[in-house]
Amino acid sequence: DRRGYPEAVYCAGKTPEQVRLIAEAVSGRPDVVTLFTRAGEEHAAAVLASLPDAAWDPEARLLAWPPTVPPSTGGLVLVLAAGTSDLPVAREAWLTARYLGREAELVVDVGVAGLHRVLGKLDLLRSARVVVVAAGMDGALPSVVAGLVRAPVVALPTSVGYGASFGGVAALLTMLNSCAPGVSVVNIDNGYGAGHLAAQIAEPA
Amino acid sequence: DRRGYPEAVYCAGKTPEQVRLIAEAVSGRPDVVTLFTRAGEEHAAAVLASLPDAAWDPEARLLAWPPTVPPSTGGLVLVLAAGTSDLPVAREAWLTARYLGREAELVVDVGVAGLHRVLGKLDLLRSARVVVVAAGMDGALPSVVAGLVRAPVVALPTSVGYGASFGGVAALLTMLNSCAPGVSVVNIDNGYGAGHLAAQIAEPA
Amino acid sequence: DRRGYPEAVYCAGKTPEQVRLIAEAVSGRPDVVTLFTRAGEEHAAAVLASLPDAAWDPEARLLAWPPTVPPSTGGLVLVLAAGTSDLPVAREAWLTARYLGREAELVVDVGVAGLHRVLGKLDLLRSARVVVVAAGMDGALPSVVAGLVRAPVVALPTSVGYGASFGGVAALLTMLNSCAPGVSVVNIDNGYGAGHLAAQIAEPA
Amino acid sequence: DRRGYPEAVYCAGKTPEQVRLIAEAVSGRPDVVTLFTRAGEEHAAAVLASLPDAAWDPEARLLAWPPTVPPSTGGLVLVLAAGTSDLPVAREAWLTARYLGREAELVVDVGVAGLHRVLGKLDLLRSARVVVVAAGMDGALPSVVAGLVRAPVVALPTSVGYGASFGGVAALLTMLNSCAPGVSVVNIDNGYGAGHLAAQIAEPA
Amino acid sequence: DRRGYPEAVYCAGKTPEQVRLIAEAVSGRPDVVTLFTRAGEEHAAAVLASLPDAAWDPEARLLAWPPTVPPSTGGLVLVLAAGTSDLPVAREAWLTARYLGREAELVVDVGVAGLHRVLGKLDLLRSARVVVVAAGMDGALPSVVAGLVRAPVVALPTSVGYGASFGGVAALLTMLNSCAPGVSVVNIDNGYGAGHLAAQIAEPA
Amino acid sequence: DRRGYPEAVYCAGKTPEQVRLIAEAVSGRPDVVTLFTRAGEEHAAAVLASLPDAAWDPEARLLAWPPTVPPSTGGLVLVLAAGTSDLPVAREAWLTARYLGREAELVVDVGVAGLHRVLGKLDLLRSARVVVVAAGMDGALPSVVAGLVRAPVVALPTSVGYGASFGGVAALLTMLNSCAPGVSVVNIDNGYGAGHLAAQIAEPA
Amino acid sequence: DRRGYPEAVYCAGKTPEQVRLIAEAVSGRPDVVTLFTRAGEEHAAAVLASLPDAAWDPEARLLAWPPTVPPSTGGLVLVLAAGTSDLPVAREAWLTARYLGREAELVVDVGVAGLHRVLGKLDLLRSARVVVVAAGMDGALPSVVAGLVRAPVVALPTSVGYGASFGGVAALLTMLNSCAPGVSVVNIDNGYGAGHLAAQIAEPA
Amino acid sequence: DRRGYPEAVYCAGKTPEQVRLIAEAVSGRPDVVTLFTRAGEEHAAAVLASLPDAAWDPEARLLAWPPTVPPSTGGLVLVLAAGTSDLPVAREAWLTARYLGREAELVVDVGVAGLHRVLGKLDLLRSARVVVVAAGMDGALPSVVAGLVRAPVVALPTSVGYGASFGGVAALLTMLNSCAPGVSVVNIDNGYGAGHLAAQIAEPA
Ligand SMILES: Nc1ncnc2c1ncn2[C@@H]1O[C@H](COP(=O)(O)O)[C@@H](O)[C@H]1O
Ligand SMILES: Nc1ncnc2c1ncn2[C@@H]1O[C@H](COP(=O)(O)O)[C@@H](O)[C@H]1O
Ligand SMILES: Nc1ncnc2c1ncn2[C@@H]1O[C@H](COP(=O)(O)O)[C@@H](O)[C@H]1O
Ligand SMILES: Nc1ncnc2c1ncn2[C@@H]1O[C@H](COP(=O)(O)O)[C@@H](O)[C@H]1O
Ligand SMILES: [Mg+2]
Ligand SMILES: [Mg+2]
Ligand SMILES: [Mg+2]
Ligand SMILES: [Mg+2]
Ligand SMILES: [Mg+2]
Ligand SMILES: [Mg+2]
Ligand SMILES: [Mg+2]
Ligand SMILES: [Mg+2]
Repeated sequence: DRRGYPEAVYCAGKTPEQVRLIAEAVSGRPDVVTLFTRAGEEHAAAVLASLPDAAWDPEARLLAWPPTVPPSTGGLVLVLAAGTSDLPVAREAWLTARYLGREAELVVDVGVAGLHRVLGKLDLLRSARVVVVAAGMDGALPSVVAGLVRAPVVALPTSVGYGASFGGVAALLTMLNSCAPGVSVVNIDNGYGAGHLAAQIAEPA
Repeated sequence: DRRGYPEAVYCAGKTPEQVRLIAEAVSGRPDVVTLFTRAGEEHAAAVLASLPDAAWDPEARLLAWPPTVPPSTGGLVLVLAAGTSDLPVAREAWLTARYLGREAELVVDVGVAGLHRVLGKLDLLRSARVVVVAAGMDGALPSVVAGLVRAPVVALPTSVGYGASFGGVAALLTMLNSCAPGVSVVNIDNGYGAGHLAAQIAEPA
Repeated sequence: DRRGYPEAVYCAGKTPEQVRLIAEAVSGRPDVVTLFTRAGEEHAAAVLASLPDAAWDPEARLLAWPPTVPPSTGGLVLVLAAGTSDLPVAREAWLTARYLGREAELVVDVGVAGLHRVLGKLDLLRSARVVVVAAGMDGALPSVVAGLVRAPVVALPTSVGYGASFGGVAALLTMLNSCAPGVSVVNIDNGYGAGHLAAQIAEPA
Repeated sequence: DRRGYPEAVYCAGKTPEQVRLIAEAVSGRPDVVTLFTRAGEEHAAAVLASLPDAAWDPEARLLAWPPTVPPSTGGLVLVLAAGTSDLPVAREAWLTARYLGREAELVVDVGVAGLHRVLGKLDLLRSARVVVVAAGMDGALPSVVAGLVRAPVVALPTSVGYGASFGGVAALLTMLNSCAPGVSVVNIDNGYGAGHLAAQIAEPA
Repeated sequence: DRRGYPEAVYCAGKTPEQVRLIAEAVSGRPDVVTLFTRAGEEHAAAVLASLPDAAWDPEARLLAWPPTVPPSTGGLVLVLAAGTSDLPVAREAWLTARYLGREAELVVDVGVAGLHRVLGKLDLLRSARVVVVAAGMDGALPSVVAGLVRAPVVALPTSVGYGASFGGVAALLTMLNSCAPGVSVVNIDNGYGAGHLAAQIAEPA
Repeated sequence: DRRGYPEAVYCAGKTPEQVRLIAEAVSGRPDVVTLFTRAGEEHAAAVLASLPDAAWDPEARLLAWPPTVPPSTGGLVLVLAAGTSDLPVAREAWLTARYLGREAELVVDVGVAGLHRVLGKLDLLRSARVVVVAAGMDGALPSVVAGLVRAPVVALPTSVGYGASFGGVAALLTMLNSCAPGVSVVNIDNGYGAGHLAAQIAEPA
Repeated sequence: DRRGYPEAVYCAGKTPEQVRLIAEAVSGRPDVVTLFTRAGEEHAAAVLASLPDAAWDPEARLLAWPPTVPPSTGGLVLVLAAGTSDLPVAREAWLTARYLGREAELVVDVGVAGLHRVLGKLDLLRSARVVVVAAGMDGALPSVVAGLVRAPVVALPTSVGYGASFGGVAALLTMLNSCAPGVSVVNIDNGYGAGHLAAQIAEPA
Repeated sequence: DRRGYPEAVYCAGKTPEQVRLIAEAVSGRPDVVTLFTRAGEEHAAAVLASLPDAAWDPEARLLAWPPTVPPSTGGLVLVLAAGTSDLPVAREAWLTARYLGREAELVVDVGVAGLHRVLGKLDLLRSARVVVVAAGMDGALPSVVAGLVRAPVVALPTSVGYGASFGGVAALLTMLNSCAPGVSVVNIDNGYGAGHLAAQIAEPA
């Protein structure tokens, strides 16, 4: 066991049938939340076959069962998405943090090309215990945010972009080389990991 | 300003003369700690010329002034180093966390090839608010540690290795792909960044 | 000839028609086993058209003819798969070793994030003449296993993962840089090669 | 001929003796400016042996002969350097633009981790016909600047950094993927190219 | 705002529904041109549903609304495409420059393997205020063009090619290493960015 | 413990002083062989200061203490080196196998450009229980050897070469993609690992 | 013009309609051979609509018009393919050489894992003026062949393979690092280029 | 044997003592030319100790013994170097071709940034049986040359450049992707291989 946190089932590498079997097994354990991540349409159908009341967020490709978000404890997890295209991954982070028991907020479209937008959120930014920053293309937003807040920043590179973005590698490298301290990075498009880590950081004392 | 944290001067890209000038400027501000990171012998001499009582750790290539470590607040920062060769980087993380005001411990030589060593530290591991894990070569240690603790893990890849370790890239990729949740990654050999982030995570509520 | 071992036909680069012709040619030589590797549905149909009693394992994408597994000689080949998603490749290794005349066992879901699972198999691990370890994502399992056993470890990276796993490259690099001696590596997803090599290592004296 | 612009001699790939011979040949043509780029100490000595009154900027590794900067025409070239360590490359750009006949200004230490510094220069930024932005590490500054000005931005990645900065590749990729339009990129550490291009862009109508 | 230039909506990362909503919002602001870039068939249908008179260029995957090209000011933007396959990207650059208010011309099939073709355009080349050069494969054309003209060259690598062209990376690297000064580079296939930058460079004084 | 095999001290990442302290500690345990790998001149001096009778092979950068090679058991380990330049790494493999208790032979200068040389060794090749094949540049030798023998092949890429050999990466990739089954690969220049693994494979039943 | 050689139309980057227009234009020039390379089914149909008697080889994805192979002059071009999967590319090379006026032979399935097969062709190999060697995976065949013949070898890497073959990059690197002199390399899967070059090399004096 | 061509000793990977021993062995065989390639100062001294009359070209790092260039047969080998910095590698190619018995000419400083220079050599270019084209940085020259001549082009990438030239990789990729047919490529800085191949191509019928 992960010592109290929800279990997560990574669906991408599994057949719907394998996912269905896991969902069935899980149906006897309503005391612990189970998350099904990277679930396509067919994976979702397989989960819902065994757990009809599971909560499903198709954009985030996430299902949760039991479906109720637990009451929140600890500090605020703030999730920023640089652009609309980063939304699916950002949403996965936001939902994960909430199912791990944190209060979480999601703010979209605050890319560095329009600084006034992120500067307009300064109070919210500074009220967070941890900030997850999702960005693709140049991946510059976490550096800017880390310069504005005292809280740790979880940088979440996305595969949004084309050409020399190399499926998120450019954003990943930008974030690893952030010239502002207080930034660490998770895998490309790993919204689940970012949300999980943020929830751990924002745990109540 | 970084809103209360020490200032850091990155020496690697500067001439000793440039560093000396900064040290001189800093000498009038004893109220805030200044860290000089990645300081070679000549950089250290330049700092000590202006700030003779600065604390110097040659292995971590770090100087701090004023030299006194502040009283610790917040949770415990635990720094693990997989092998002896990872020590300089691990030490940089450990010292940084302490100068940012955290209690910090450093444990060396707990690589995955000898699991009993890390398993022998379980109590210490589980008492930490955050664990920094430095490793080169295969970089496998953070995955193992994250499976054992509830606290967030800051993975710190080092350039220790040869051939297909590609100066730390192999370890970096291993860590980004950790199959245990709760791991985020900083740049290769970035002990300063890891220690800084850990101190932020372990801040008092 | 490969000096006594089965012939293998690599189907991925061939048209079903080319595969059918090879199967037909082979049908006259029942004294030597022929393996058809990386066979999709259409390749399988083409083989079965000429060799209707061939054994087909769709998950491993492998066909064998004559279908009977030969009696086993030599030492035990143990195949470990870190997660369920590594199963197709692990299965290809396991079947290959068996068609080369070895006793072989397959153990799934023993990833490093839950150490107790692999530690619970220590006796089985130590009874093997050689251990094949299939893992994707961080690829950390072979390092851990090699630290626990005296037998050689054949590390088998899989393309399971996303983002900075780069289709198995992260796991491959982790394995090449294993900090435990006694590990060698085959190509990503090369279950056939891993099983073949393991069978050679476990040959009777 | 380059149709009216100065000639440039790339010294890095040449022996001092080869450079000396070129300087000698050039000494008979005082009507056109010759720049010696990437000149080490020995190259500089070789140039000065033939052209004793050449202007030498050791930090930028640049020599110019005849030494007088021509009177400026056209628009303003503004050169920004994110950090002190980017100064040599930024200086090479700045000097090149001036020897090509432009008015040019150089502003240092305006990295994105301290946004107030770059925001404090808005008027100067908006008075430029073209802005050269030199940055290493995360290379995020050009995206921020391009969002603030109407003028074209020449992004100049530097090799400042370590680990996953890969000698400037991380900054280069960030800049190529800038999410603000109006940014183009030159080679890593190519201050000469950036200054040359900026001078061309700022040419009088 | 981008201070007077058209707004651009990057469709590739959005659902048709998201694009439709933006188009609707935009329909109330006919005073500023909006460009919809990287629009597939379904994106285009979504835009046209809200803005039936939008101009659509399927080859360039671009829509513009209001559809009228503004009267041109400033210098000439010349767009060269090395081969026919580079045409979609070159066309995106050409249209963007025109919607930003520049006179622009497009010349195709002037690759370096037939030098006489580009040499036959010398007068046109030398009349331009800026030249955008689109090329895939070896990406050699910008170096040749920059040697022939005094104007700045915006090099636009395309993903045309196979094998070791690596989706445009070979062309990108060629261009970054141009041995002729006066060349800067945008992202692979970024016709929008190249055209935007060219329009900025060719702005009236 | 590694269950009976010698201990190895990786010197490359340690100061001579650190190595000296380990040698001193080891001097009280003559019952188990200790190998000091990747030992430069200064490391060797440090070992010899504490263990004056240690065996030192400067070409292989290896020291062993106690110095006596143990009596050999198990099958023959054959080490091939494609060219003279691969000798240091091949020698490290050969010595390691011998200190692990195997009979081992070393054959040099049998590259694929002169097939008759390797074909002239067929009897020796076929008498081995395992063959280690060291090669740089094109790394083609293991494929050829694996086609000639029934024994497993441990492919040992070396960093011999220049340009697109990328410090051994070209040879590494060749070997991972061997079209002959029965080949596995260790890290570039990892003679210690290859010899260790070969000794494990050739263990007595 | 290419000075007497056939024209080639690269279809991959063109729409069928664009190809049809070119075919129509070409139909008036029967004096020079036109090759249509990388032609898919739809491209072929477009060519055949305008040039119904064109010769079409679907495996090589090549069409030629006029369809008659010219009488051969010059030396023999020998094309070797390591395996059946390399056949499409090898065939493209063989046909190209023939349409350029050379005698050409094609030999398949002579990979290095079965040396006797290539050694059995020694007389044919030594009768050629130039040898094209197509191979994927480890790409080791050109090194072996170059050691056996006095003629120049054109190495033709193919994208056959998986995992760390990286779409032909492993074979490409092997070939660039050939330890036998007399080998040069063309792009991955570039059968047209290899055949063209071979025909040039084998031109009559 | 290489069937009549000179032997070549690759010095870079050998100690001076090893080279001296080879030179001594060779001194008894004056009937065949031996080339010592990539010979540094100390390697050269070692050769000259045993073969005092050997011809030494320090710039090309080449020694030849017996020192007399053989009388030339076959076609003309033309070696072009884009810039002065490419001279050492170009010279190695030129000397190798001459010691293999070809007439050879060397032309320097004909880069694509000044097309008139290469166009001024058209007659010489068209008189060659084969053209070796050495270039670093953008590596664009072979594409231009291949468009001008009917003879085969051996593209020789050099490591001249910095930043994103990646030690010659950019030039290598440019050349592999040449849009003009008739170009093949050797390893970065492999003047020996280029000259050897050119001599083979230009052999008398
Ligand atoms: N070792 C280090 N690694 C990464 N960033 C650092 C390091 N030391 C200082 N920095 C950051 O670099 C900036 C200081 O740069 P500078 O003003 O050039 O000394 C600050 O943003 C620091 O947080
Ligand atoms: N084709 C394109 N390539 C690169 N950037 C673009 C493209 N089209 C629009 N953009 C930029 O992407 C941003 C718009 O993103 P969004 O608000 O998500 O539509 C703006 O900064 C645009 O300048
Ligand atoms: N040359 C070498 N290459 C790879 N691993 C080595 C080498 N020498 C020692 N090791 C491993 O490094 C570890 C010892 O590390 P250390 O703590 O530095 O002595 C053990 O796991 C050894 O098996
Ligand atoms: N400069 C060079 N670049 C590439 N291969 C070379 C070079 N010089 C010699 N060789 C080849 O390397 C082999 C000689 O290696 P060795 O026996 O170690 O001297 C022969 O196959 C030569 O053809
Ligand atoms: Mg901060
Ligand atoms: Mg954990
Ligand atoms: Mg072991
Ligand atoms: Mg702007
Ligand atoms: Mg120009
Ligand atoms: Mg074999
Ligand atoms: Mg040969
Ligand atoms: Mg030509």
